[in-house]
Order: sequence, then C-alpha cells, then structure tokens
Amino acid sequence: MFPGYAGKVVRVNLTRKRVKTQETSEELARRFVGGRGLAAKIFFDEVPVATEPLSPGNLLIFMTGPFAGTSALNSGRHCVTCKSPLTGLYAHSDAGGTWGQELKFSGHDGIVFSGKARKPVYMWIQDEDVELRSARHLWGLDAYETDEAVRKETDEKAEVACIGPAGEKLVKVASILHDGKHARMAARAGVGAVMGSKNLKAVAVKGSKPVRVADSEKLQSLVKETAPIIVSNTSRMAKYGTSNIVESAEVSGDLPMKNWYQGRWEEGAKKISGEKMAETILVSRYFCGRCVIGCGRVVKITTGKYAGVDGSGPEYETVASLGSLCLVDNLEAVAMANEVCNRYGIDTISTGAAIAFAMEAYEKGLISKKDTGRIELKWGSEEALLSLTRMIGARKGIGKLLGQGVRAAAEKIGRNSEEFAIHIKGLELPMHDPRTYTSLAVAYATSNRGACHLEGVTHPLERNTPFPEFGYETVMNPYAPEGKGEMTAKMQNLMCMFDSLPACKFLIFGKIKIQNLLDWLNAITGWSLTREEFLKIGERIFNLERLYNLRLGVSRKDDMIPPRILSNKRPDRGEATSLPHIGKMLSDYYQYRGWTEEGIPTKEKLHELGLIDEQPIGKKRQP
Amino acid sequence: MFPGYAGKVVRVNLTRKRVKTQETSEELARRFVGGRGLAAKIFFDEVPVATEPLSPGNLLIFMTGPFAGTSALNSGRHCVTCKSPLTGLYAHSDAGGTWGQELKFSGHDGIVFSGKARKPVYMWIQDEDVELRSARHLWGLDAYETDEAVRKETDEKAEVACIGPAGEKLVKVASILHDGKHARMAARAGVGAVMGSKNLKAVAVKGSKPVRVADSEKLQSLVKETAPIIVSNTSRMAKYGTSNIVESAEVSGDLPMKNWYQGRWEEGAKKISGEKMAETILVSRYFCGRCVIGCGRVVKITTGKYAGVDGSGPEYETVASLGSLCLVDNLEAVAMANEVCNRYGIDTISTGAAIAFAMEAYEKGLISKKDTGRIELKWGSEEALLSLTRMIGARKGIGKLLGQGVRAAAEKIGRNSEEFAIHIKGLELPMHDPRTYTSLAVAYATSNRGACHLEGVTHPLERNTPFPEFGYETVMNPYAPEGKGEMTAKMQNLMCMFDSLPACKFLIFGKIKIQNLLDWLNAITGWSLTREEFLKIGERIFNLERLYNLRLGVSRKDDMIPPRILSNKRPDRGEATSLPHIGKMLSDYYQYRGWTEEGIPTKEKLHELGLIDEQPIGKKRQP
Repeated sequence: MFPGYAGKVVRVNLTRKRVKTQETSEELARRFVGGRGLAAKIFFDEVPVATEPLSPGNLLIFMTGPFAGTSALNSGRHCVTCKSPLTGLYAHSDAGGTWGQELKFSGHDGIVFSGKARKPVYMWIQDEDVELRSARHLWGLDAYETDEAVRKETDEKAEVACIGPAGEKLVKVASILHDGKHARMAARAGVGAVMGSKNLKAVAVKGSKPVRVADSEKLQSLVKETAPIIVSNTSRMAKYGTSNIVESAEVSGDLPMKNWYQGRWEEGAKKISGEKMAETILVSRYFCGRCVIGCGRVVKITTGKYAGVDGSGPEYETVASLGSLCLVDNLEAVAMANEVCNRYGIDTISTGAAIAFAMEAYEKGLISKKDTGRIELKWGSEEALLSLTRMIGARKGIGKLLGQGVRAAAEKIGRNSEEFAIHIKGLELPMHDPRTYTSLAVAYATSNRGACHLEGVTHPLERNTPFPEFGYETVMNPYAPEGKGEMTAKMQNLMCMFDSLPACKFLIFGKIKIQNLLDWLNAITGWSLTREEFLKIGERIFNLERLYNLRLGVSRKDDMIPPRILSNKRPDRGEATSLPHIGKMLSDYYQYRGWTEEGIPTKEKLHELGLIDEQPIGKKRQP
Repeated sequence: MFPGYAGKVVRVNLTRKRVKTQETSEELARRFVGGRGLAAKIFFDEVPVATEPLSPGNLLIFMTGPFAGTSALNSGRHCVTCKSPLTGLYAHSDAGGTWGQELKFSGHDGIVFSGKARKPVYMWIQDEDVELRSARHLWGLDAYETDEAVRKETDEKAEVACIGPAGEKLVKVASILHDGKHARMAARAGVGAVMGSKNLKAVAVKGSKPVRVADSEKLQSLVKETAPIIVSNTSRMAKYGTSNIVESAEVSGDLPMKNWYQGRWEEGAKKISGEKMAETILVSRYFCGRCVIGCGRVVKITTGKYAGVDGSGPEYETVASLGSLCLVDNLEAVAMANEVCNRYGIDTISTGAAIAFAMEAYEKGLISKKDTGRIELKWGSEEALLSLTRMIGARKGIGKLLGQGVRAAAEKIGRNSEEFAIHIKGLELPMHDPRTYTSLAVAYATSNRGACHLEGVTHPLERNTPFPEFGYETVMNPYAPEGKGEMTAKMQNLMCMFDSLPACKFLIFGKIKIQNLLDWLNAITGWSLTREEFLKIGERIFNLERLYNLRLGVSRKDDMIPPRILSNKRPDRGEATSLPHIGKMLSDYYQYRGWTEEGIPTKEKLHELGLIDEQPIGKKRQP
C-alpha cells in the first residue's frame, strides 16, 4: 500500500457472481492518478470497441482518487465510467457527495463491475467484506426509497449509490443517485442505464479505515491556509447556490431559453433564480465530503400544488434545463420536476433538453396530442413539464422516445427535427450558451463525452474569473475566438486532474491555485511532482479518452456544434451576442494539442505523453 | 408565339416512344424566363420527391431561353435539369456551345424527356420533324465519336448533345457533351447518367427558323454599344483562357492543391498555367454562340507520350482538378486526362476530386495496390491520373467506386475517410478556395445543386471585380465575413437570371451591367420589366429550387462546408489565408433571404415571390 491510495480495487463479475480484489497499480496511479484518469485507463484496456453499451461486456467502473478521504478540500467526489448508451462512446460521469470517500475508508480505490447478474442484486461493502445480495425486493423502488431501504438493511450510516426505475428500464438518460435525498448524481451520458443493464440496483459502502497520507501535518497546514480564501471567494455561491447566476446569465445571454431559440426572458429568470429560492423554499445547505463552499441546496415545499417536495433543490443546470429551456417560470414546479428526476434516476439536463425539444416539435406540428397522450406541450406548461418528466422516467408513452435522447428522437420524428435537436455526439448541451461565451463552442465540440461544460470549465475565464496561472490576467473577451482553442485545451487538461484527484471544480471560483492542488497531492502521496508533470498527466488522460473514441471513428467531423448554435443570432439580443467561429477555434485547438488537423493525436504527441502503446486500434488511421 | 421564344416545347415519353409538342406558356415565361428557371418549374411540378434519379420517373429537361438564337451576346447556352444521382437532389447543369441556339432555330425552346427507351435511341430534330431513331450501333462509342457518327447520319451541321460510355454505364459523375471535340459539357451532378438511364444516346438538332425579336433594331444597337466594352475587359481571358488565373490563384491561395491540404505550389502552377498552354499546345480559340470573349481553348499534341490529343483544351477548373488537386504538373498529361474525360463523358471536377481523394486514401493506407489494380496512387503521378480517369469513365476496377463520387466512396471505405471527402450535399467542390475567398463558404453551402461556384460567382467581387450595381464599389475584403451572406444571396439571384436568359457569366468580367441584360431582354420580348422585377424573377427561381430540396429534407443542417475547409489553416500559407466564419455568414444569408434560421423560406417570402402554391409538400415543416 502506498500513501494516498487504499491500495485495492474490487473486481466483480456479476454473471458469475465472482468477487475478487486486485492491488491498485502504483505505476498506473503515477500515470493516471485516480478517479476519471485511472478509470479511463482500465476502460481503454478492457472494453473492446464493438461492445454494446447495454450488454454484459460493458464495464461499469466506480473510481475515486488520492484526495478522497483525506483532508484535502472539496474532495468528496468519484467518477463512474462506462461506454455510454446515449452517445455510443466512452463516458465518465462524476458525482459529489460522500460515497467516494466512504469507499476509500472501506479500503478500496474503486470497483469494476463486469457481466450481468441473472437477478437483481446489490453490493454491500463493509471494509474488507464484500457481498452481493439479492435486490429483487428493491426492484421498482424509486432512488430515494432505495437509498433508505438499503441503509436499513445494511447500516444507517452506509453510503449508497443506486438507480431508480429509469435505470432498471434502461432509459438512456438514466443516472445514478448518491447521498439519498441530497441527490448527488452521476447523471450524464446514461450511466444509470448501464447499471440497470447489469441488474445492479445499488452499491452500499461503509468503511472505518483512515487513508494513509504521506505527510499529514503538511497537508493539514496547507489546507488550513487555503480554506479561508476559498470560503471568502465563494460566498455568493454559498448563499444562493449554483443558481446564484440565473439572473446575470439571463442578462449576458448565457442562460438558454426556449430550446436555445430565445434571447431574453427577464421576468422569468427572476422567478426561478437562486435569490428566489433562498427567499422561498430553501431550508438549508448541503456540503459534499470536505467541502468548504456548500453550494448544495435543501428545499422543502409544504403547501400548495407541489407540497411534498423534500430534499435536494435544483442546481443551476436543472433550473435552466427544466425551467428556462422550457420557459417554465414556476420555481416550485421546477423543484418538483427535479425531485421526480432524482427519484426516477434521470439526468435533469438531458430530460429538460428532451422536453424542450418535444415542445418545439409540438409547436411545429411534428408531434400532436395523439403522440403525447393528450397532453398539450405548450411552452411554459408546468403540467407538460411534470407529465413528460414522469413519462421519461417511467419509459412510458412518448417518454419511451424522449428518454433515448434528442438525437434518437429527432431521427425517429424526422422532418428536419434534427435542426432543433440540440446535442453534440448524442449528449444534450448543458446550460451555458456558446453564443455568449464563445470558448464553449470548441469546449463542447471537443469534450470526450459529448457536449459538456465540465470537461473544460472555460466560460468562467470569459465571465468573471481571470486565470493568471495560465497567463489569463484579465477576463477574456467572450465574443472573440482568438486564443480560445488553446485556453480550452489547457483547461480540459487541468479538469482531467480535478476529476482524477478528485477535487470539486468550484475551487476555481474559490481562486485556488494549481500549486495548491499539486502541494496537496505531493503531501498525500509523498511524490514530488512538478507543475509540468502534474499538467502532463491531465493531458495524458484527455488524450487517452480521445484515443478510445478515435477507435470508434470519432474525428474532427464529429467535433461540431449544432446548427442552431452555429448560426442563429438570437435577434432579440441585439448586439449582446455573437456567433462562434468554430472553424478557427478548432484549428487553433488541434494545433495547440499537437493533433492533426483531423483531430488525431500525432505519434510525436503520443510519445511525449507515454501513450504510444495505447495507440488506437487500426494503425492505418494514423496519418 | 410571343417574341423571344420559339413557342414550343417537345415532350418525349421514351417508354412509349411518344413525341408531342406543347406550347411554351407565356405566363410561366414571364415568371421563370427560360433555361434554368423554366426547367426548374417543370421539374418542381412534375417530379415527385420519391423519384429515384436513375429510374424512368425522373425527367431530363433540356431548356434554353429568350436570348438564345438572338444577337444577344454570349447567349449560346442552355440548361439540363433532372434529379441528380450524385446528390439525390434537384440539379441543373448548364452548358455553352451552339446546341441551345440551334434548338431554338428548330422552333423549340426545350425538350422534356420522360420514361426510358427499351433499346438505345437518339433523337433527331430538324425544324418540326422530331424523330426517335435507334442508337444500338452507337452504343459504346465515345462522345467525340458519337457526335461525328450522329452528324454523319443526320446533317453535318447538326448540333449534337450526347453521352459517352460513362453515361451509358450510369457512372454518377457522367456528363453530357455538346459541340463534339470542342466539348461544351453539361458536366456537373451526373446528368449524363440520367441520360444513360433513359437509353438516350444523343439529341441532334438542326434548325432554320430565326428567332422573332420584338425590337430587333434596338437589340442590335444595344449589343453594338456593349460588345467593345466586354471585349476590352476580357482580353486576358481571350489570350490565356480561363486558366489565365492559375498562377495568381496559386499566390492568393484560391487554387486547391493536394486535395485541399497544401497551400503553396509555385513551380507546379507555372507548369500548368494558361500562359504555358499558350506557349505550347494551344492551336486556336473557341467561341460559344454569339460569344465575343472566346475563352475556349483548342489544343493539339502531336509528339511524345501524349500525342493524339486534339480538340478542346482544359479549362481552369480542369487544370486545377486534374492538375494541382492531384499535384500533377505536366500540362500535356492534364490535357490528355481532360480529353479522356470528354470522350468517356465524365465531369472533370468530380473526376479530379475523386482521384485526389483516392490518392490521399492511398497515402494514408486506407486503400492499397490490391484495390487499385497494382497502380501506385502517388501524388503527382501522371500514370495514376490517367489510369484512374479511364477506370472511372469505364466503370472498371476502383473506378466503380470513385465514379460514385467522394461521398459514396468515403462511406464505403470508412475509417474516417469522410474527413477528406471534400463535397457538399454529395457534389465535389469546384476549384476555388473558401479559405481565400470567404464568401465561397456560404455560396457553396447554400447552392441548390451542392457545392457550386457558378450559382453564386461571388469570389470575383473579393478578387478584382467590384460590382457597383449592388453597391460594392471596391473589392471586398476576401477574409472578412461581414456582408458576404447578403452579397451571396444577391449574386445567386442574379446568376439565376444569367442561367435563364441564358447569358454567359463571364460577361461579369466584361463589366456588363444588369441594365444591359434587362434592356436586351425587354427588346427581345417586348416586355417592360423593371430592374426590380428582373431581379425578383431570379430570387423566385432560387427559392423554387430550394423548395424542391426542402421536400427532400434539406435545411440548414445540410448547408455546411467540409471539415477540412472549416478548420484546416494550410499552415504553409502563413497569414495569407483565413478560415471562413460559416455560422455568421449563414445567419446573415438566411436573414437577408427572408428565410427562417433553419433555412426555410417564410410564408411571407413565398407570398412576395408568388410561390405560395409551390410550398413544399408536408406543410407541417413550415414553422
């Protein structure tokens, strides 16, 4: 066992009900750190490209990293990795909460599930005791209920990862819930469906072993210095949650509305803002493991139409996707839809995007009441929002189609509905607009899991967060393409490290320095990584992910933004908007990355990153 | 019969061997003028969207317009319209020469072929005598031979439109030859394959009837005024042909090289330039009907490897596609390949593009000598160029695949070859580079027949030809996207008129004014069209074509440029290049056109253009 790591990974063959543990490889830990990076390496080595995402051949990997379980700040995170049923490509889905650190306390860095259980099962890990149990009595329970039931059967203090009915039914936007009612979700890219395809209802963990840290005193003192800086820089987020930006995002044009068609929605934004939540339904904050920010919302609605909502409140992404994207301006309705998503276990972003898509298809006459089960899919309709959310979660009616994501839905509906199916590589866009923060165009286009704002986290540098460490001393011009390709690549590499350590990306808003993370990592592991080596690991991870997708035929032709984002000006915004120059940014991006103009890492780059053995299968594809 | 028109259109049902004539509709002539416009209207009304391009249900329409056969300058043109087997969409293919005016002299404005002859036939029109004859003895002859044989059997002075072996064999890049060895081709979009699919080998025409002109004296005097201006402004083109620009296009980056990958090729360009041709193989010039420019080349090679070449010399488009695009720098080899294309009856642009694509695929190891029949497909190889040209023409070996166009070839080869299959909507790009003249990006993206430089002719306005009539008093900045959407739409509307009158677009280089064309048209027809009405007709035609493609599902998502053009900087050009901002230009373009942001004409626009009855089928597609 080496410091910073539990030293073991659980390997579970669900088909054969066989469980074994394997030592965590120190060599791989040094090359890929943990979390997203280490999981990507296992995935790359073991999942053949032709694997069907919902077949037993897919792996479902839960992995955390050296920070988890230590006193490193905001480190209560882990990564879920598999082949995505939504995109057909490599996917990672990262969750907060306390599950990751609890796994570490149990003496494990990760769990790799393969195969498929014949009957529903759940896994119970208590330190070295690893057990598969029947979950037949849990099948059909919603995710909140599952969390409660599993804890009742195991340990009240156990941490549970579980799916709701959507995952069981292989809904392609299904998510994995952690922390019960506090709902930390591994939400994106349909990882819940992969869990369901394995007949795996839950994974409960409880541990009692502290994580060995190489220089514990040093870590303590480093953390102590940094914490107040982070706290003082994130007070607005603490007070109003991630939704603190709703109103300003409406002004800047970052907030998408009406399926990315509309440019202003002032009154609506006010009604669903973080301030509004604080004034009305908010009851407390929630903190993931070791968190000093506390952006999580806990809400409760006790009267009226939506009485009963109780638990995790909607994040910014959720407020936007279930709110502004559908023009729904009732915060309580959004909170209810959020809870429905959590209980069924579906991604709020993809769900909201699918509903907005359906509303537009309805408006254009491409679907009718006959298709919706008599529901009028009017913009802003709370009833439509909630009905469709439930139908997607339950895989019923038109929800069967919408739950496959907007790409598949548009293929089915046809008649040019592809025009307003807003996705990249099959993953629905998150709720920040590349027409306001232009870097997002290239960041979304090149994200390895499809349209993603978290692989890059580039837009803060164009909004209000200069990043002097990469030389961006002032806020970048949000509308200008210059320099955005390079900045995006740099941030993507860094974010690979955040996801692998793991560390919450909101530390960026807390003005954390790369050196802080590096110092923590060295103190925890006893390594003496330089800043350059640290960032190189991030680059290695990102390139490895790209290599997997390359095997599946992904290249520049797939690194494209949806037509609406490319060319719809949102005329109601006047001059306060732009259209992203994707060609220029992509060209700069590839060049900075040392990729060919077709988006393929060169041999020289693979050599430099020590990835030459991980070349994509079919060497002929290499120019 | 009304002035300017022969007044009759021949209707031929080849299945039933039935020929009838129909009066040309004056109402339609006023709405769509003739040529491309009138043919588009017939096509729109009569060809159901589900029609397979190579089935008897497709129409093959030859149509000319009021200028043809009059003394209007440079009016020896006509249009061939059908559904394209290459793109699957509406297509027009426009040819110069003398065939169009001869048709008019025979008393016909156009011919509409439907059905399919059981056995090969050709058509012989001598004034009112219209006859279908067996062509079984002609089947298999090359296009030059066919022209000669048909004239021998009919009239030495007859004008012949015919296909070579490629059209017979349904090669999807097959063309239709006119004027025999002088080779005026209706080349693009596979119209020759449609002719072949009808078992129609040739259409010979001879006429003796002058075209009635409303005010002949006026026309004469107008033409007399304009001719010297045109002549004096096109002297370089007269001297060196369209290839006069090869060297300057290499310098500016307009000339594509190495399948659009390379940016400079100075020595090569010199060897294939118009000047070089004038110094070596040129024997005389060729003039289409009523032409005062004479850009056509006649060449002859009497010694060496390529002895035997005799007739039409390669145009700029051909020199570039068979030359620089494949890095072949031997002008005699290019001239030979050009003649091979003409004899087989295949489009030189699509052929050169397919060969360049194959060379790149070979370089990348995606195809090997096993696929090519032992030919080494090296860049610059004359042997490869000529072998592949013959294989495409004869539909043999790898030519079977390449003759289907690069889109289909890339689909077959797979492994990311789509990255360097340079086409839009299935039609290979012509030889002007949007990274040098940025308007070409939006012009190519929105052309109704797929990537086309002739639907817009926008790049001269960014090169050396200000167009004050549309307010462009000076040459536009070639790298800037500003104003290019609007300019492109205006030029496309005007070019619809050129193709419908018909008039040669090189009159633009002759500094012709819109008013000149309008005055000629009014003198010929006796109409009193205003400039506004004149341009409105062009807009009507362009929108009608778009409406047909809309029925087939075309919209903004299809109005896109190939990834390589979007994001490959051609680094060897330094700063002397740009990447087109397609999103911005498209947005401006749609807005100026009065189309939705999805590229669909609004009801208001259709009303304005009097096209409300021509709405696309499936009204639900209208927003």
